[in-house]
Amino acid sequence: MLSKNRIKLIRSLKSKKGRDKTNCFIVEGLKSIKELLDSNYHIETLYIRNNIDESDVVDFKDQNLFFIDPHEMKEISNLANPTEALALVSKPETTKLPNSEKLMIALDSVQDPGNLGTIIRTCDWFGINQIFLGNGSVDFYNPKVIQATMGSFTRVKPFKVDLDSFIHEKKQEGVKIIAAHLSGASLLQFQFKSVNSHLLLFGNEGNGLSDHLRDLSDFLIKIPGSEQAESLNIAASMSILTWEAFRSTFNR
Amino acid sequence: MLSKNRIKLIRSLKSKKGRDKTNCFIVEGLKSIKELLDSNYHIETLYIRNNIDESDVVDFKDQNLFFIDPHEMKEISNLANPTEALALVSKPETTKLPNSEKLMIALDSVQDPGNLGTIIRTCDWFGINQIFLGNGSVDFYNPKVIQATMGSFTRVKPFKVDLDSFIHEKKQEGVKIIAAHLSGASLLQFQFKSVNSHLLLFGNEGNGLSDHLRDLSDFLIKIPGSEQAESLNIAASMSILTWEAFRSTFNR
Repeated sequence: MLSKNRIKLIRSLKSKKGRDKTNCFIVEGLKSIKELLDSNYHIETLYIRNNIDESDVVDFKDQNLFFIDPHEMKEISNLANPTEALALVSKPETTKLPNSEKLMIALDSVQDPGNLGTIIRTCDWFGINQIFLGNGSVDFYNPKVIQATMGSFTRVKPFKVDLDSFIHEKKQEGVKIIAAHLSGASLLQFQFKSVNSHLLLFGNEGNGLSDHLRDLSDFLIKIPGSEQAESLNIAASMSILTWEAFRSTFNR
Repeated sequence: MLSKNRIKLIRSLKSKKGRDKTNCFIVEGLKSIKELLDSNYHIETLYIRNNIDESDVVDFKDQNLFFIDPHEMKEISNLANPTEALALVSKPETTKLPNSEKLMIALDSVQDPGNLGTIIRTCDWFGINQIFLGNGSVDFYNPKVIQATMGSFTRVKPFKVDLDSFIHEKKQEGVKIIAAHLSGASLLQFQFKSVNSHLLLFGNEGNGLSDHLRDLSDFLIKIPGSEQAESLNIAASMSILTWEAFRSTFNR
């Protein structure tokens, strides 16, 4: 049985404060938790509902595993409909910034956890294994972000950066900074070149990119449309721009 | 002051049952509500928080308008952080199916309201003014769907259809049925042709498209990637495929 203190600790991981204090975060669902086994993440404790089939947990026999009652799972889960498993996972040590890749994604002040989760999933799909997050962005380890990545968080490494100095540094390396911006030129006129490294930059859901970061960018790009809607969802526009970069530099 | 019965009625609109009974749904936020004024939707009642600036509501002076206390707004709102305005809006009468357009979107059993809302927003962005929903899909008028469309629901008309007979009918008209499917051919090899009408078809988030609908499709298409992630978010793949159709038939 889970102690009151343990329940309190697990619940505290819903907040960034709790996660920063313990250096842990929560992953729910056997499928996502299984992906942890093939990653560099360390499972601190794994809670499994005691009414599930033993064959489903054979992969986890070497883990620090506890079976709990369904009503206990309900107490610690962040989901309206809790799954069969919940893991406390250690946050990895922060490492130094990686070398530039051909295609990089940076987000400034993205607020919605579902949007960040979807963006991480799209990164993973296109083989982009890093994401650069400006200071105002929602926490990568927010449970709703983790949930929305569908396991992709295990393959896409987050780097918290000061975007101003990060972009300056990348520009000095010759990386092209491409910002999604409603005042930008049409994506139909833009050509990603496979000789270049590109950094795709996206701003806040409501306010877009800050003027300062806009001015630092090499190209402002707008996805053309019918002009009847005010804007696209940020995860939708990130997916389109990333696909466009992938498509136009594929095998070249 | 809001009566208990009125509060009960408004709260009942969170569920599909309540919406079907009253033929009403909820829209929150002045920005989305303003878009209703330019649409065919009829605002039945509009509730505005009594602590906002009168100049903000001047557009609504001809509406059936009530000012309410912030704590009353909290009681009727579906949002964790209620906005300044909430409208009860009549659902439009169902009309007969429209003629085929150059690009149409159909969804089978899409479950997540945020996904459907984002898809509707992408439709609107690209000037697609209809969406065809199979029987298992989340309700278009679910408050979370409406919220995620950011006003685009006023320009994209939903049609509930039996996808089987709908697709048969479209095929007879010569419409090409393009289904997103993980076993499909690479999108890099596919060419949308401007002489054709296309129907893009998407399945359930977890289970994909049913075998039956897959077999009815003319082309199965997969967005190529790095093969490390299992799948893309459905709203992300819908956005990429819709962009691709837009891009490759633009001005041709």
